[in-house]
Amino acid sequence: MTSEARLLAITMGDPCGIGPEIIAKAVRSGAAADTIVIGDVGVMRRAAALAGGMLAVGRLDGIEPVPPNTIGVLEPPGLPSGLAELPPGRVDARAGAAAARCIEHAASLALEGSVAGIVTAPIHKEALAAPGIAFPGHTEMLQSLAALGGPMPLVRMMLANDELRTVLVTIHMSLRRAIDAVSFDAVLSTIRIAHASAAAWGMARPRIAVAGLNPHAGEGGLFGDEEITIIGPAIEAARAEGIEASGPHPPDTVFMRARQGAFDIVVAMTHDHGLIPVKYLGVEQGVNVTLGLPFVRTSPDHGTAFDIAGTGRADPASLGAALRMARRLVQ
Amino acid sequence: MTSEARLLAITMGDPCGIGPEIIAKAVRSGAAADTIVIGDVGVMRRAAALAGGMLAVGRLDGIEPVPPNTIGVLEPPGLPSGLAELPPGRVDARAGAAAARCIEHAASLALEGSVAGIVTAPIHKEALAAPGIAFPGHTEMLQSLAALGGPMPLVRMMLANDELRTVLVTIHMSLRRAIDAVSFDAVLSTIRIAHASAAAWGMARPRIAVAGLNPHAGEGGLFGDEEITIIGPAIEAARAEGIEASGPHPPDTVFMRARQGAFDIVVAMTHDHGLIPVKYLGVEQGVNVTLGLPFVRTSPDHGTAFDIAGTGRADPASLGAALRMARRLVQ
Repeated sequence: MTSEARLLAITMGDPCGIGPEIIAKAVRSGAAADTIVIGDVGVMRRAAALAGGMLAVGRLDGIEPVPPNTIGVLEPPGLPSGLAELPPGRVDARAGAAAARCIEHAASLALEGSVAGIVTAPIHKEALAAPGIAFPGHTEMLQSLAALGGPMPLVRMMLANDELRTVLVTIHMSLRRAIDAVSFDAVLSTIRIAHASAAAWGMARPRIAVAGLNPHAGEGGLFGDEEITIIGPAIEAARAEGIEASGPHPPDTVFMRARQGAFDIVVAMTHDHGLIPVKYLGVEQGVNVTLGLPFVRTSPDHGTAFDIAGTGRADPASLGAALRMARRLVQ
Repeated sequence: MTSEARLLAITMGDPCGIGPEIIAKAVRSGAAADTIVIGDVGVMRRAAALAGGMLAVGRLDGIEPVPPNTIGVLEPPGLPSGLAELPPGRVDARAGAAAARCIEHAASLALEGSVAGIVTAPIHKEALAAPGIAFPGHTEMLQSLAALGGPMPLVRMMLANDELRTVLVTIHMSLRRAIDAVSFDAVLSTIRIAHASAAAWGMARPRIAVAGLNPHAGEGGLFGDEEITIIGPAIEAARAEGIEASGPHPPDTVFMRARQGAFDIVVAMTHDHGLIPVKYLGVEQGVNVTLGLPFVRTSPDHGTAFDIAGTGRADPASLGAALRMARRLVQ
């Protein structure tokens, strides 16, 4: 690994959202040392102006370290033109296409080992869908891109802050479809991925709490039987492999108990069971980590915030937390 | 209303759970002034011994004020015998039957105006089911009992602590059934009940946030359409009635926003969407309030805790919060 491979690649996200602005602010505050930005130079110049102060934006020819107070931008081939003129806060197919192109390029750099990992700024799913890019989110897109470098990995979304880590069995689908997607294999794979990832972070025997799907974890079958027929057996199978998994726990109290220290990781069946508690104390410290990829990938725990895009009011705290988390994971 | 009608009735809950113990502790700490207990004298004597210190237990012949450091117990006719000998922490049909009988009696006292309201200690749903009492919880049982005094009321469960109030569209059913139960009428009724209850508490124009059902509130239809076909129209109908309702909001951030002050009440579609955030910071301060009944009813935000029943380690904080809330609501 060359010294350049210690760099993290930050994708600029949707040019019409707050992604470029929070990247510029993170560079200015020193939170984004040892990074390069995969994005559009014009878009990043506009963002630098929003961040205020002295902040240079330079086009990179390759992957190379960048001086302080400087946004080093590597432009992937094939970006649409005129991105810096797009109005902030609007869905635009060119913006979606550009965001996707940057993710694709960053993933290829990570796969070939040219960067140590990637941190992604927020994309807008409707903008992504507008040019026909059929991914509900980063996680699925990165899973697909990772398959270019080898077998298709099984991936899971983890949301984490200083006091809680949750790994999700299902994510970007309707709640009705999510219930159908809660299978023995999906639950067991999630427990395994959570366990293996925690081991890679140096946590020898993580205590993994598996939340139920139904109120009161089904109350002994009175309120649904997925705990009895699917989730319980998956936990048993994981335990038989030596994983310290427990549950199914009632969803309404398991996150509180993890916060109080009873568990290291909570496996949640649905997007919102897992994300409501991580976000409850504020999205500033939340970080999204994709587990199971052949490279490190983190992102802030918020979206494009179209309502404040272009105003200069975006908060780079969650991106800063994502950068810190990525640095810890690549070491 | 006589002066006795200022008293609150506390139901003892399941005799094998922590209910009697937390009642005794609340009486001892002074948190349960102006209350009578609807329960079994022997069970309350056993609980008083767990609470420690000097604490008298007296049988009441009617509804009358009780001196400090004294548990005044009104025994409903028809309680099973031998309740004080039941082992703590076990499901027992006699315990379930006794708990139900106490709720029934307390509800009749409240309906006739003999007590100002009721505060219920936790019951165990399997113990309740054991003697064939087919209610998934207090809320449904009280709704049914209230119908003895007039038309069947529409009721909703509210969970509240110092920083968040959530009212639930669906509660004790499987998540799959809950999705089917999210109808235009159910959502609109919940918004109306939340609005009317808040008005009764002196909140003239409560800001009611309605959470979506699906991840990202359906992401414009990509992840489910209940927001478009059901929840959105119900919000519009409520607004047409002059109610300040907004949404559907993404479930993962709406509770955080309410906590930060953006909304007064959050209407949640499912049990766990609503309860995860209320419980996340600890169940000690959470209170369950049944909205829509013809009398005030509150309860602690936790269960029978069979794992610590009989040990003397139960925390009466949430019961204390439920008593304070009930007193505020009956004024």
